[in-house]
Amino acid sequence: MGNYAFGVDVGGTTVKMGLFDEAGRVLDKWEIPTVKDNDGESILPDVAKSILKKMKEKDISEDDLAGIGIGVPGAVDGEGTLIGGAVNIGWKPFNIPKVLSAYINVPVKAANDANAAAFGEMWQGGGRGYSNMVAVTLGTGVGGGIIVNGNILTGATGAGGEIGHIHIEDNETEECGCKNKGCLEQYASATGIARLARRRLAEDDKPSILREGHLSAKTVFDAVKAGDEVAIQIAERFGHYLGKGLAAVAGVVNPEVFVIGGGVSKAGEILLGFIEPELQKYVFPPCGSVKLALAELGNDAGIYGAAGLILQNKK
Amino acid sequence: MGNYAFGVDVGGTTVKMGLFDEAGRVLDKWEIPTVKDNDGESILPDVAKSILKKMKEKDISEDDLAGIGIGVPGAVDGEGTLIGGAVNIGWKPFNIPKVLSAYINVPVKAANDANAAAFGEMWQGGGRGYSNMVAVTLGTGVGGGIIVNGNILTGATGAGGEIGHIHIEDNETEECGCKNKGCLEQYASATGIARLARRRLAEDDKPSILREGHLSAKTVFDAVKAGDEVAIQIAERFGHYLGKGLAAVAGVVNPEVFVIGGGVSKAGEILLGFIEPELQKYVFPPCGSVKLALAELGNDAGIYGAAGLILQNKK
Repeated sequence: MGNYAFGVDVGGTTVKMGLFDEAGRVLDKWEIPTVKDNDGESILPDVAKSILKKMKEKDISEDDLAGIGIGVPGAVDGEGTLIGGAVNIGWKPFNIPKVLSAYINVPVKAANDANAAAFGEMWQGGGRGYSNMVAVTLGTGVGGGIIVNGNILTGATGAGGEIGHIHIEDNETEECGCKNKGCLEQYASATGIARLARRRLAEDDKPSILREGHLSAKTVFDAVKAGDEVAIQIAERFGHYLGKGLAAVAGVVNPEVFVIGGGVSKAGEILLGFIEPELQKYVFPPCGSVKLALAELGNDAGIYGAAGLILQNKK
Repeated sequence: MGNYAFGVDVGGTTVKMGLFDEAGRVLDKWEIPTVKDNDGESILPDVAKSILKKMKEKDISEDDLAGIGIGVPGAVDGEGTLIGGAVNIGWKPFNIPKVLSAYINVPVKAANDANAAAFGEMWQGGGRGYSNMVAVTLGTGVGGGIIVNGNILTGATGAGGEIGHIHIEDNETEECGCKNKGCLEQYASATGIARLARRRLAEDDKPSILREGHLSAKTVFDAVKAGDEVAIQIAERFGHYLGKGLAAVAGVVNPEVFVIGGGVSKAGEILLGFIEPELQKYVFPPCGSVKLALAELGNDAGIYGAAGLILQNKK
């Protein structure tokens, strides 16, 4: 068995791909468009074609490959079967390794894309050195991925680690996208932070940079860095909700580290300072040793994690 | 390797032991006192002596044994090391399999007692047929054990599954044993239910059987069965809190089933009827397929699970 692996991250508009060596270094990185016509039937053949081309270009044979890892936007079970299909690329349920390895005869492992990204952060990113970790993605929504003893926690229906919908506020009147009210995602996502900001600004007339221009997670944290008091209050509310939510997660799975990623995490270390005290306030003390770290791989976490599924287990 | 296993459950006053066959049947069951003198130094030698005596009595050799499983009242890591000791039996940290297998030369596996009990319920109890399960113990406190893909989720510090201390109520004024306020345990344990009952009775003068005699989880659910309206309201509040807490757990680990045990669960099926609607109200819909079941093994769950650690993995 070889020492190289390809990592593939199938998204709604592009498929990201990378060639990795055993040490976890990315040797090459590229992408191809996701062709969604006819229930996305050409996506896997396109991936295979692109990998075979790269193998030729780099003079890599099947024997040089440890395998191919692939992350997809849907729930995947332990055997690599896409349980419920992947709506936004048109895929019906099927076993991914079986189909892909028919094109390239090497071991194939498949995972949900968020879980693959979590795995990537553990392998080569903000969670390096840990094997019990929860990745928290603060983007349009709040997603997550849980790693237990170095393995992805898939869950019964592939929804393990979907921590964005933990109920966190009894007094919420607006509905979350999931139809419940008071989900973590309503306060800790990029849209949630903008919502907290609008609510805070409506409370009084206190001057703030945020009263001019566009409201977003980015403008809020930029204002925090500029010392804006109203923005700091908004960030404290964000930290309260996220800290409370992560405290619940810590009590359930007792991780070593939370790795915070997604667009909101671009605010940097300052973010963690708002989360930490609230996490410590609510956490069950024996689980309070959990650390907070920032994700490091950005949009490449998915290809790292997919390749890591192959190379990490090789040792 | 043989087909029998001993399951050992070390408690504060007695050590329970059982001899099991591969099919999960208990062939014999007995207990010995837990001698806690001198930091509990004679406990493991006593266990070994008792097992050797039983082996002689049943004409079972080391070759007939698949191994010995043991549950202990402390955090145990994946290698069977008692990480932080076990305060209530005087044990300091040490590797349990190493010590016990010096007396009887067979494979030994150790686990936290609550986790072993959870494993037992999966192997031969209310969680039979599932491999992703959360055991919830409603006793003096609220404990838990999480099984992921058939394996115990230990966590970074052995506190995985300690779901009793999820924060669930912002308006609580009394402290939980863990020093936080508003923990699940404050409402869903036996003492928590009695507390909910006292609070409800103090609200008005509505007649209730519960106004006479001793208040406990048992008297509350007996009154529920007798159709007492006040008791039903108390049970609804209990169901609200536990359903809300389990919804959070379901969103994190996405189990197939919750197995409800502990003294409170003796109320029977009626209990589940109060939990189910609240669980469904708060759960992230993709995790809503989770089932509720009652534990079946009672105080024997620990010896079953300990033996199961050996015999389940044998297949």
